[in-house]
Amino acid sequence: MKKRFYFPLFIFAAAHLFSQDQAILKIRADHEPRHFDLLKEYAAFLSLPNTMNDPSELVANAEFISGMMKKRGIRNIQLLHADAEGAIPAVYGQPVNPDKWAEGLSPFTPQLASGPLDKGGQLLDFPAANADLNPDWRLYARSAADDKAGVFTILNAYDAIRRTGLAPHVNIKFFFEGEEERGSTNLGEILQKHRDLLRADAWIICDGPMHASGKKQITFGVRGDVNLHLTVYGAKRPLHSGNYGNWAPNPAMKLVRLLATMKDDEGHVLVDGFYDDVIPLSASERAALAAIPDPAPMMQQELAFAEPESTTRTFLESITTLPTLNINGIVSANVGRLASNIIPTTATATLDLRLVKGNDSRRQTGKVIDHIRNQGYLVLDREPTDEERLANANIATVRSGTGYNAQRTSMDLPVSQLVIEAVKSTTSQEVVLMPSAGGSLPLYLFEEILHTPPITVPVVNYDNNQHGENENVQIGFLWNGMETIAAIMLIDFK
Amino acid sequence: MKKRFYFPLFIFAAAHLFSQDQAILKIRADHEPRHFDLLKEYAAFLSLPNTMNDPSELVANAEFISGMMKKRGIRNIQLLHADAEGAIPAVYGQPVNPDKWAEGLSPFTPQLASGPLDKGGQLLDFPAANADLNPDWRLYARSAADDKAGVFTILNAYDAIRRTGLAPHVNIKFFFEGEEERGSTNLGEILQKHRDLLRADAWIICDGPMHASGKKQITFGVRGDVNLHLTVYGAKRPLHSGNYGNWAPNPAMKLVRLLATMKDDEGHVLVDGFYDDVIPLSASERAALAAIPDPAPMMQQELAFAEPESTTRTFLESITTLPTLNINGIVSANVGRLASNIIPTTATATLDLRLVKGNDSRRQTGKVIDHIRNQGYLVLDREPTDEERLANANIATVRSGTGYNAQRTSMDLPVSQLVIEAVKSTTSQEVVLMPSAGGSLPLYLFEEILHTPPITVPVVNYDNNQHGENENVQIGFLWNGMETIAAIMLIDFK
Repeated sequence: MKKRFYFPLFIFAAAHLFSQDQAILKIRADHEPRHFDLLKEYAAFLSLPNTMNDPSELVANAEFISGMMKKRGIRNIQLLHADAEGAIPAVYGQPVNPDKWAEGLSPFTPQLASGPLDKGGQLLDFPAANADLNPDWRLYARSAADDKAGVFTILNAYDAIRRTGLAPHVNIKFFFEGEEERGSTNLGEILQKHRDLLRADAWIICDGPMHASGKKQITFGVRGDVNLHLTVYGAKRPLHSGNYGNWAPNPAMKLVRLLATMKDDEGHVLVDGFYDDVIPLSASERAALAAIPDPAPMMQQELAFAEPESTTRTFLESITTLPTLNINGIVSANVGRLASNIIPTTATATLDLRLVKGNDSRRQTGKVIDHIRNQGYLVLDREPTDEERLANANIATVRSGTGYNAQRTSMDLPVSQLVIEAVKSTTSQEVVLMPSAGGSLPLYLFEEILHTPPITVPVVNYDNNQHGENENVQIGFLWNGMETIAAIMLIDFK
Repeated sequence: MKKRFYFPLFIFAAAHLFSQDQAILKIRADHEPRHFDLLKEYAAFLSLPNTMNDPSELVANAEFISGMMKKRGIRNIQLLHADAEGAIPAVYGQPVNPDKWAEGLSPFTPQLASGPLDKGGQLLDFPAANADLNPDWRLYARSAADDKAGVFTILNAYDAIRRTGLAPHVNIKFFFEGEEERGSTNLGEILQKHRDLLRADAWIICDGPMHASGKKQITFGVRGDVNLHLTVYGAKRPLHSGNYGNWAPNPAMKLVRLLATMKDDEGHVLVDGFYDDVIPLSASERAALAAIPDPAPMMQQELAFAEPESTTRTFLESITTLPTLNINGIVSANVGRLASNIIPTTATATLDLRLVKGNDSRRQTGKVIDHIRNQGYLVLDREPTDEERLANANIATVRSGTGYNAQRTSMDLPVSQLVIEAVKSTTSQEVVLMPSAGGSLPLYLFEEILHTPPITVPVVNYDNNQHGENENVQIGFLWNGMETIAAIMLIDFK
């Protein structure tokens, strides 16, 4: 589940009784006694499956969210559809695999634990209503962190404001979208169709984990992304490697030689013009990046490798400032016990190109295709015919997925500055300001269709096993997240 | 089923009544009326499964062969075992897949057809006893060509000689081995243990297909073979290609860069000393090779590729005179619809090195390992530890299979010349003399353990789908093969 929360900046006439810091203290005092009830409701929300295999699951989730909104006094709740029938489109699975979850856990049976299970945490019975809730406890369930935690913090932040007797200075519209895990393929249409309803001055997106240090974080952009599937060819049938070895062309060898031309040993992409379109970071963005502690040494230790791809770039520069060319996978015939002494018929690689501000997904894939052509390949977007095979020594089929561009909201915008101040008001620690995440979301749609800058405010712990088995949220992050979002809702734009 | 047929050269005192050519004509006249009975017996033999999944299947086949031998007056039949208990060793499957066979065919239900089914042949009922058997008919069954056809031709050749009232000039010993499809792992021990019983002056091996032209063929050698399984490493767990892309090392990219250093674009192996040990062909071998029509243009058309690996070598030179470095397969994560936007944890390639006379399998794999080391890799024969991962930017695990060396019997040996003459006596066409096959069999064992030169005489049609679905033998090749082998059995070594 992905939710997109946004508020247009119409200033309220409501009396302004508290400073922002004071407001947060009051909200904290008021919502603390309600933690048990909120956790119980959240556990009920997490027990609704959302595996993407069954469209009715998404409907059930949407109805649950509508119920949560009604209880909190939100009116005018609508289900927005991309098409007239409101059909949920064809579904492909990103199914959870319950077998991979730790003993005692199941994706849609929320379970408390005293801490991370892989670091000695023990399973806990759900506590009684009057029990103290330790903020270090973990709640294990699929979506506990990604991304029902966003729904939780957004709706409960609003509720906390309301119950405390405060009032936002702006109109708030809530928008929850349920298809991010399968590429948000309908989001563009939905935004286009409902653009009047959704018009706003800023979008606050609640997604992804916070900084590994536990510090609060604001992220001002994402990289874009596009995939390329590349296949090269040998003989039409697998050949005995003895009877034909040294003679028949080997597509696996062709592919490795082709891919090896694409990058040097410092990880620099050798495709002509690959870095040409990049819009460099602004002065504020560079300063923000430099202020973030380098997580690389800690991560390298955990991931157990000796050298990053490039020894001249920092981790944050690597994932923020440059487009990538990455091999997601290579397959040609089989290896190990499944291998046989053959010359394979084809070899395929899937690449992903991450894009930064300035890159266009089609232009970037075009550069890679030109590079393949420059290596002497006939490039097709389909299987070659026999005639083409007999006429061309090197043939590559290149199919590209639907890509989308990067998006970056300037930190220097007044709204950016106000969001930074709001988040800072909720913590005594520094706030990590990320000019861009390394990952990708189709946030460019908000800019392109609605002309509204999106700003992402993550609320969950970084070690949440997002997308994997044993997904969990540290419950203290839920309470802190509510405060973060409440502070943003209370921004005074006067 | 593999059979190895060999005869020691003790000259018989029997009267020598016919010239070799006359003997073959007489044998032909005598055995022709028996074709139906032979085909019927062969069909019964082919209906015994030998999938390697069940050791008892091999025992049943061995008993059937013993029965065939007894019927033909062969005495002193023994089952030779590698170990004292005579246990058939651990089995791994090279199972047949009946689903891939054409409609109406089943691997162990022999079926006649009027010709190749993929070229318009029609299924035929098994004919009546007095029917004419068209030599172009095909008999479809697993092992019909590879390699029960060897058992058929060897035993029926001997029987035909006996029935015709002729007598071989030499002692003949028959040896059928059943484990070639899983690497003949016990053959060395069997030869060693029974070396006195098996002592001989020459071995005639009946395996593989004849020349594509249909001409009779004698093959004087095989390439050796050894496999290498090569794995390189990235981070310990799959990483999100957005959050870590440009930073975390990508093992797929490492592997393609490493493999690309191993060969140039003319297929020349760049591993130091790779070609150093090669013993070049002798003058006779070079002359024999030059006399064989180049099958490359026809094969290239069928296989639908424009350029062989090297444009400076002929097909026969490529597969006969040089060792190979061939990629059997590469796997790193997934591609296409199964791909995800990750940085893989490992990338693995399986290579096979074909060896020619002079190469030693361990020395040859050692050169490749040295090459990997020279590219800056720590080479291990096991998974790396975390400490090793953190201390070494490039780690490769290289595991090599059990390899074996090439074998080449000189065409200039007296026995080679006699075998050539014998085969020539059975045909009006030229005989194709191959100094070495491209493929591999552990024939070096006969030289190393028994100090006896092996010579291979294939008898089946080249388009027999050996090892695949719809395996078949063209039945005329069975009758011609009997004559070929009979002529060899009648060699007069005086």
